[in-house]
Amino acid sequence: MRTKFQPLIFFMLCMNFACTSNSTEHAQTTQKDTTISSTKEVLPSWNNTALKKSIIDYVTAVTKEGSADFVPVADRIATFDNDGTLWSEQPEYFQLFYALDKIKALAPAHPEWKTKQPFKAVLENNTAELMKQGEKGILQLIAVSHTGMTTEQFNTSVNQWADTAKHPVKHKLYKELVYQPMLELIQYLQANQFKVFIVSGGGIDFMRAWAENVYGIPKDQIIGSSIKMKYDYNNGDPIILKLPELDFIDDKDGKAVGIAKYIGRKPVFAAGNSDGDLQMLQWTASNSFRNFKLYVHHTDSIREWAYDRKSHIGTFDKGWDEAITKQWAIADMKTDWKIIYPFEK
Amino acid sequence: MRTKFQPLIFFMLCMNFACTSNSTEHAQTTQKDTTISSTKEVLPSWNNTALKKSIIDYVTAVTKEGSADFVPVADRIATFDNDGTLWSEQPEYFQLFYALDKIKALAPAHPEWKTKQPFKAVLENNTAELMKQGEKGILQLIAVSHTGMTTEQFNTSVNQWADTAKHPVKHKLYKELVYQPMLELIQYLQANQFKVFIVSGGGIDFMRAWAENVYGIPKDQIIGSSIKMKYDYNNGDPIILKLPELDFIDDKDGKAVGIAKYIGRKPVFAAGNSDGDLQMLQWTASNSFRNFKLYVHHTDSIREWAYDRKSHIGTFDKGWDEAITKQWAIADMKTDWKIIYPFEK
Repeated sequence: MRTKFQPLIFFMLCMNFACTSNSTEHAQTTQKDTTISSTKEVLPSWNNTALKKSIIDYVTAVTKEGSADFVPVADRIATFDNDGTLWSEQPEYFQLFYALDKIKALAPAHPEWKTKQPFKAVLENNTAELMKQGEKGILQLIAVSHTGMTTEQFNTSVNQWADTAKHPVKHKLYKELVYQPMLELIQYLQANQFKVFIVSGGGIDFMRAWAENVYGIPKDQIIGSSIKMKYDYNNGDPIILKLPELDFIDDKDGKAVGIAKYIGRKPVFAAGNSDGDLQMLQWTASNSFRNFKLYVHHTDSIREWAYDRKSHIGTFDKGWDEAITKQWAIADMKTDWKIIYPFEK
Repeated sequence: MRTKFQPLIFFMLCMNFACTSNSTEHAQTTQKDTTISSTKEVLPSWNNTALKKSIIDYVTAVTKEGSADFVPVADRIATFDNDGTLWSEQPEYFQLFYALDKIKALAPAHPEWKTKQPFKAVLENNTAELMKQGEKGILQLIAVSHTGMTTEQFNTSVNQWADTAKHPVKHKLYKELVYQPMLELIQYLQANQFKVFIVSGGGIDFMRAWAENVYGIPKDQIIGSSIKMKYDYNNGDPIILKLPELDFIDDKDGKAVGIAKYIGRKPVFAAGNSDGDLQMLQWTASNSFRNFKLYVHHTDSIREWAYDRKSHIGTFDKGWDEAITKQWAIADMKTDWKIIYPFEK
């Protein structure tokens, strides 16, 4: 059982219950800008630093017919990590908050949970007790929050959460905590005929539920970790059931494999923020077409969070060393970004 | 071992060595038509039957803003089977011919194969002897032809084969044996903002190598059966290795699961030709948007092949019954199609 749920266990072991919260406020959708036209400033939420210039120089060079660096449209594949690269990931991965909120939401129908672990610990925000429940307890939480339902039921559940639940510190919808400069970068690449994918260690179905509208990236271009599924004819009303068995871990080596599996083509542009993204950036760097590797560095303790080498989430250590050695681009959030979130506009 | 390689074993057990062949002739690429414009005849290689009208009626209804049947662009997902639906599949799946041709091409570097089974049987076109080698022998053939190499090496190998190898009966490149009416259908749907996917029981990397250019469908929109892969940093020159272990079987129930896994959205249009496609059509039929299910029926023994309920490949039996009962569309190749292949134009 250990290996099967390693990533989920990893993220659940780091959690901090004291800060979970729910909200029933009405949905606010994060709207993306309209497509950037030639008359509009490119990447307006990026400061005019060397990094912004290098991004624009790269895109200009690879999209110019006849340029030595020209990349055919079919090869303009861009891959973005999600947690910590497109939206915040502190104090815990947002997907964990979903899992815990889901259990709390289901609790009224399960009075037995009040006295049954690990649910009791979740309902009482008792971190110490939950930790004692160990792997078995965590598997039960995962089973309840992510499996044993149809794909449609899960999609609805995640969307309801994304439309209402608020972040414990920022007091905004989780989906409002996306990075405005990165939204602009996605749109800039799309406007230049890049096909943009999300390649995340997070759950593929969790992201597909809300990310399509928030980022303007179609569901089939969102890749993540997955659990196994099963088709059931269900007497003529077919369903697909989510099973409590891990299928694919889209992290570290798995990100390069996930790209081969889902995209079938090496990216020319990749962005991440942690050691979990390193192999994706290495794989991109090995492209014979001119390529661009970007690391987002969390340096802004006031507007966002500041962390890198020793963080319990988003550890940026080996990746940092390799980025420095190989002169990959690093977005310093404090100095390169005018604003962090769309609501700051 | 039995379950892991079931689909490959299935297709390899049906083979007929006497008819395999190679060719070193220069590549001929099957070109697709340019996008259909409003002034051009729609689906020109389809006869003016009720079926053609029903396809056009459907597409017109679901793309008309304000229509009760209107389907938003993001939901215009169309999924096509490949073998027997987009190209021929007789006398054996074309991927089998690739495997055997590959072994013959590798033979000069392996003099020991002349006396070592199962390779000896392949090189001598000795079907009876190969059958005696059983599962173990087949696994060796798969290992040699499909695994133990990098994704790039496999891609190159398949493309070289697709550019040169000819069909034993039709004496055309395999990739010339695609169905012109179906190419037009794909283009017609794409011109109407459908996102078209291939969802095949065949190997995903085998198809991605040649199908993108032939069908005009990007690699990431080609889904199939897969084997596991492994990332290797390889001292700074990263590779992804194809391992001799099955990852996913994209057939029957697996087609509905494959759609959930790779696309994350239910199709509104699906086309197949066998019982292996039934669950994909059922899944499509359960879409709340108006949807279209199409079965290709192989009825033309002169221009193509005629087979259905009792074929060793492309069995169309349960699917036939359900299509009749539920009034799904059936393309009778003999009567609905003016021509079969692009070279007949």
